[in-house]
Amino acid sequence: MTTSPIPWLSLSKEEKKKFISSLDSVVSDCDGVLWLGSKVIPGATEVMNGFKTLGKSIFLLTNNSTKSNEELSRKSAGLGFNTTEDESIGTARLTALYLKSIDFKKKAYVIAGVAVENELKSVGIECIGVGPDVFQVRQHCEAIELMSQQNGIEEGVGAVVVGYDLHFSYPKLQKACTYLADPECILIATNTDERFPLPGRVFAPGCGAFVAAVAVATGRKPLVMGKPSPFAIDLVLRAKGLNPEKSMMIGDRCDTDIAFGNSANMKTLLVLTGVTDLELLKRFENENKTDLLPTYYVPSIADLVDDMNELIAESQQNQ
Amino acid sequence: MTTSPIPWLSLSKEEKKKFISSLDSVVSDCDGVLWLGSKVIPGATEVMNGFKTLGKSIFLLTNNSTKSNEELSRKSAGLGFNTTEDESIGTARLTALYLKSIDFKKKAYVIAGVAVENELKSVGIECIGVGPDVFQVRQHCEAIELMSQQNGIEEGVGAVVVGYDLHFSYPKLQKACTYLADPECILIATNTDERFPLPGRVFAPGCGAFVAAVAVATGRKPLVMGKPSPFAIDLVLRAKGLNPEKSMMIGDRCDTDIAFGNSANMKTLLVLTGVTDLELLKRFENENKTDLLPTYYVPSIADLVDDMNELIAESQQNQ
Repeated sequence: MTTSPIPWLSLSKEEKKKFISSLDSVVSDCDGVLWLGSKVIPGATEVMNGFKTLGKSIFLLTNNSTKSNEELSRKSAGLGFNTTEDESIGTARLTALYLKSIDFKKKAYVIAGVAVENELKSVGIECIGVGPDVFQVRQHCEAIELMSQQNGIEEGVGAVVVGYDLHFSYPKLQKACTYLADPECILIATNTDERFPLPGRVFAPGCGAFVAAVAVATGRKPLVMGKPSPFAIDLVLRAKGLNPEKSMMIGDRCDTDIAFGNSANMKTLLVLTGVTDLELLKRFENENKTDLLPTYYVPSIADLVDDMNELIAESQQNQ
Repeated sequence: MTTSPIPWLSLSKEEKKKFISSLDSVVSDCDGVLWLGSKVIPGATEVMNGFKTLGKSIFLLTNNSTKSNEELSRKSAGLGFNTTEDESIGTARLTALYLKSIDFKKKAYVIAGVAVENELKSVGIECIGVGPDVFQVRQHCEAIELMSQQNGIEEGVGAVVVGYDLHFSYPKLQKACTYLADPECILIATNTDERFPLPGRVFAPGCGAFVAAVAVATGRKPLVMGKPSPFAIDLVLRAKGLNPEKSMMIGDRCDTDIAFGNSANMKTLLVLTGVTDLELLKRFENENKTDLLPTYYVPSIADLVDDMNELIAESQQNQ
């Protein structure tokens, strides 16, 4: 039986307040929910800071692998969010925590940016591969002869980590193939977001595009750190005291954020300021994709500002 | 009902000769069947030239997009095959023939090598994109700001062509996303071979890895030129007088060569000198993947040399 997502704005004032009051913790995605690039989404700081004023734990949880938790925290603070590094979780850090959890002692070949390298280094893992890597080739070289070249292959690599990499290139793919030919070498993807919408119905490649190339080239399935996989719950959120049943996940993507929240047994709120629009939500509903359907949906996080302000005023009156 | 592949070596001498005599044409894959890189597979020239001596049409049909038909022909002649350019078919030429067949008049953005560019140019199509293309980025740049950059985007691009590209890179993927945001722009893959085996159970990326990245990043399904798609039959082989029912496809990959031959209603012969080994063949059989099962299989094309020589001797005696 499908439970249809409820429009947040169809709830009565009392229903909204009752629901918010029932929560212990709020986990929010970042891009598309709280900010777009370097611009905060109006109302986002009031709402998130409001949750904190009401005594709830708040966490920022992003699939973005291009920022360390420290950078993520600095960005959110700079945009006006009352959050600490302890409340900021990105997939660069998640990857480091996962490798630490399995007591990983080898080197990691990293197809990703410096944030992944820095987070891995911070848990003592040696990284290679970050930065530009371009094959110098003769134009008419036999492809198979080139493929047989294994320049720059190091000993002792036990993991290939694929994140968002602006330097993604053929030689990186070739090296991933070579390392992953060893069945003991594991393949980790920070996340598999397929693409990013840009203004004007233009799309940009997401990390999932790089991951797909590596997976197809190697015939290996990656272990995915980011939403919707449960690693953030397993490695971080429960450890920080999160009780999923009394928590809400706010996101802009049904296939990552909402799927993650649902699988973790959290309440979920979809905002329509990012990837998933109303049309796509209705399609998921018609296709009975219950794992992708949020508890509530709302045009923007800004639509919670009034409820939040009233709840804060009430809680201050009661003190 | 599955018809099990028949071991060629289990046939009687008479059965083998009768089968070969029944053929009008023989189509052979190249890498893994006739040669490995720049080394001819022993017996391959005797067998293929033998078919020709017996009066059969022969064609070389490769998914490789890194050679024009002229280069392919030059390579095969250099290795001792008695073949002309007219008998050599690669996916670079197939792509050009397809675009010509739909009267394509716009520019093509080419993620592939010079062979694709040269073949497209030869049918009057303007190409952009071939060669190195590396994003110059600041390390700590906001990803979304980078993604919004659309440097070097040209007007009038109506197709993105993805082939084997040793310069595959992030900016190419980004440009493919931008061009393919236009629903009128078509996406063509020369082929989708996933990976290439190298000695020592090492694999190298195949064109399918680049295609997967573009497909995931754009949410588009490519039109695939190479085997197992029927474009070679539709655009070339029937035009050259091939009668599939009286033809044999020789290949080393069940999922490309044999699937292609089967779908075209040709007889098929799998050689075990390339990608598909006996274990994988048995797996396809157990999984009842009838479209991937060859009529016959044989350790190597060399195992046909004796039959060929006897047939040639007999045909010369009869003259």
